[in-house]
Amino acid sequence: MAETILNRRIVMASRPTGMPSLENFSMEEVEEPYDAPDGGVLLKTLFFSLDPYMRGRMDAGPSYAQALEPGGVMEGGSVCEVLASRDAAFKPGDIVLAGTGWQTHPRASAKGLRKIDPALAPVSTALGILGMPGMTAYTGLLNIGTPKPGETLVVAAASGAVGSAVGQIGRIKGCRVVGIAGGPEKTRYIREELGFDVALDHRAADFGEQLKAACPGGIDIYFENVGGQVWDLVRPLLNNFARVPVCGLIAQYNGVEGGGPGSSVALRSVLVKRLRIQGFIVSDFAAQREDFLRDMGAWVASGEMKYREDVVEGIDNTVSAFIGLLEGRNFGKLLIRP
Amino acid sequence: MAETILNRRIVMASRPTGMPSLENFSMEEVEEPYDAPDGGVLLKTLFFSLDPYMRGRMDAGPSYAQALEPGGVMEGGSVCEVLASRDAAFKPGDIVLAGTGWQTHPRASAKGLRKIDPALAPVSTALGILGMPGMTAYTGLLNIGTPKPGETLVVAAASGAVGSAVGQIGRIKGCRVVGIAGGPEKTRYIREELGFDVALDHRAADFGEQLKAACPGGIDIYFENVGGQVWDLVRPLLNNFARVPVCGLIAQYNGVEGGGPGSSVALRSVLVKRLRIQGFIVSDFAAQREDFLRDMGAWVASGEMKYREDVVEGIDNTVSAFIGLLEGRNFGKLLIRP
Repeated sequence: MAETILNRRIVMASRPTGMPSLENFSMEEVEEPYDAPDGGVLLKTLFFSLDPYMRGRMDAGPSYAQALEPGGVMEGGSVCEVLASRDAAFKPGDIVLAGTGWQTHPRASAKGLRKIDPALAPVSTALGILGMPGMTAYTGLLNIGTPKPGETLVVAAASGAVGSAVGQIGRIKGCRVVGIAGGPEKTRYIREELGFDVALDHRAADFGEQLKAACPGGIDIYFENVGGQVWDLVRPLLNNFARVPVCGLIAQYNGVEGGGPGSSVALRSVLVKRLRIQGFIVSDFAAQREDFLRDMGAWVASGEMKYREDVVEGIDNTVSAFIGLLEGRNFGKLLIRP
Repeated sequence: MAETILNRRIVMASRPTGMPSLENFSMEEVEEPYDAPDGGVLLKTLFFSLDPYMRGRMDAGPSYAQALEPGGVMEGGSVCEVLASRDAAFKPGDIVLAGTGWQTHPRASAKGLRKIDPALAPVSTALGILGMPGMTAYTGLLNIGTPKPGETLVVAAASGAVGSAVGQIGRIKGCRVVGIAGGPEKTRYIREELGFDVALDHRAADFGEQLKAACPGGIDIYFENVGGQVWDLVRPLLNNFARVPVCGLIAQYNGVEGGGPGSSVALRSVLVKRLRIQGFIVSDFAAQREDFLRDMGAWVASGEMKYREDVVEGIDNTVSAFIGLLEGRNFGKLLIRP
C-alpha cells in the first residue's frame, strides 16, 4: 500500500467581481498520508459537480449558504470511491455521494456520506438527474409550481440539468411546456429529444414576440432559474394565479445580464394577478428525498425522463468549464472526472 | 301598500385621479314601482359596506374585478331587508347579504343573495368580522401566512377590519403579533383591547427604528394590506422562509404614498431568503367559507375575537366617509346605515 497520496485541489484565491476568471482560483497539491481520519474516510473522486450556485458561494454577501473564504477549497457535490475507512459503515470500494468539492483525493467525515448502489443507475446520476439538480426540479415544480393538466409552463435554461428535468416533469403532469435555450443545437434537443411542446432561442432578435406567440393563453407557471431579461418578458404574460418558483438566478450571480440585480416584481401585480412568487433551495425540501428518488428513478428507468451529462476530463479543466457554465456554454449536467 | 318607492343611489360621475373627491360622485333619486322584478326581490338597505378595494374598482386599468364605468352605481356588499319578492326562497322581512352597493332601495336577482340569521349575531357583522373582511384575514393568514407558534407576525393597518382580525388570529395561533396603526388611539386599541404584543405608530419620526426594535428575531409573516412606506421598512427584516400574503394596497390605490406603484421585491432576495410572496383576494378561497364561519363564529362567540364597527348614519355622508377610509381616518369596519 502506498504510504502517501497526492491530493490536488482547487481553492478560491480571491473573490471575483462579476464573471470569475482564472486568477480567482489556484491549484494546490498536497502530499497526505494514505489513511482515513478518525471516524472518516479517504476518498478518490470519480466525479465532482459544477453548478451555477457555486458562483454565489464565492461572494461575501449574505446568501442562503455560508460564503466561501479566500483560500478555501471550492465546495460542491461529488461521487467518490472509498480508499480507506475508519468508520464501520464504509469499506474500501464503496461508492458514496459526498460534498468534497473540487479535489481529487479528499478526506471526509463519515457523517454526511451516502452510499450509492452502482447497480441502480450510473453513479454520476447521483450528481444530476437523481441528485441535487433533479431534486431541485422535482421539489420546486411540484411544491411551488403545482402543475395542472393543460397549463402552460415556461422554463428558461431548458437544456440545463434543472431546466430539462422541470420541463419533462411538466410534460408528465400534462402541461404544455415552452422551453427557452440558447442556440439551435439546444432548442432542437429540448424539442426533439425531450419532447417539449415549443423550444425558443433567446438569442433570436424577435425572441419577445416569439415567446408571446408561443403562449397564446398566457403563462401559468414560470420556473425562474435564470433571471435577467427573460423575466422581464415573461412577467406581462403571467396569468392570474400564476406561480413562479425562484430557484437560482444564473445571470444575477454575475450581475451581468439585462435585468441584473434589479429584476423584481411589483406588489401591485402580485395582488392584481394573485401571483405566487417563492424562492427555494433544494434542501428546504429534504424531507421529500424518498418521494423524489422513487418517482424520478421510475421515470428514468421507463425512459420517460431523459438526461444529458457533459463530462469534462481532468481537474485542470475545471475553471474554464465553470466559466463556460456561467456563460451558458455547457450542454447538459456538467461534471468533472478529475 | 305604497305604489312606488324612492331609491337613492350614488353613481361614479367621473373617474378620479389619485384621491377621489366629491365631484367624482353624484346622487340619483329614482321613483320606482314598489314591486320585485321577476325572479328577484325589492330590498331596503340596512347597511352597506365601504372598503378600500372600491377605489381600485373606479380605475379603468386591469384589476382583479371588472372596472366600474362612469354612470354606474358604486358596487359593494350590503345587508338588506326584503320588502317584496318574486322568488320562492325569499319573503318580505327576510334579512339577506347582497351586493347592491351604495343605494337605499335596490332591486336584485335572487341569485347571489344569502339569508342571514339575525339570532346568531348582529346582522352588520355579515359585512365585517363574519363577512368579507374577516374572511380575507382568515384565508390569507392561514393559507399563505401559515402562522406557527412563536413566529413574529407584523400587520399594518392593524386597527382596520382586516388587520385587526389578522392580528387576533395570529395571537390565537400562537404568534407574537406586532401591529402598526396611525395615532395613539388606534395603537392603544390594538394593544389593550385586542391584545397585540406590540403596537407601533407609523407616524412616529423613528418608526423604522421602533419596528426593528420590536422584531429582534426578524419577521416571519408580514400581512401586506397597505403598501408603500411600511413595506420598504419591513423588507430588510424578513427572515428566511418569511411569508407575505398581499391582500390589498390602500396606499397604492391612490398612487399617493411613499412606495407607491413602485413597491416591489427583488427576485434576488426572494431567492436568498426563500420568501413566499403571494397575492390573493377573498373569493379565491370561496370554498373555505364554511370553515371560516365555523371558526370565526366560535371565536366571536367566545370573546376571543373582538371587532369594532364604525357606522355612519345617512347615505349623504357616504362619499366623505369613503375618502376618510382611504386616508385612514376611520376606526373599525366602516358601514353606512343609509
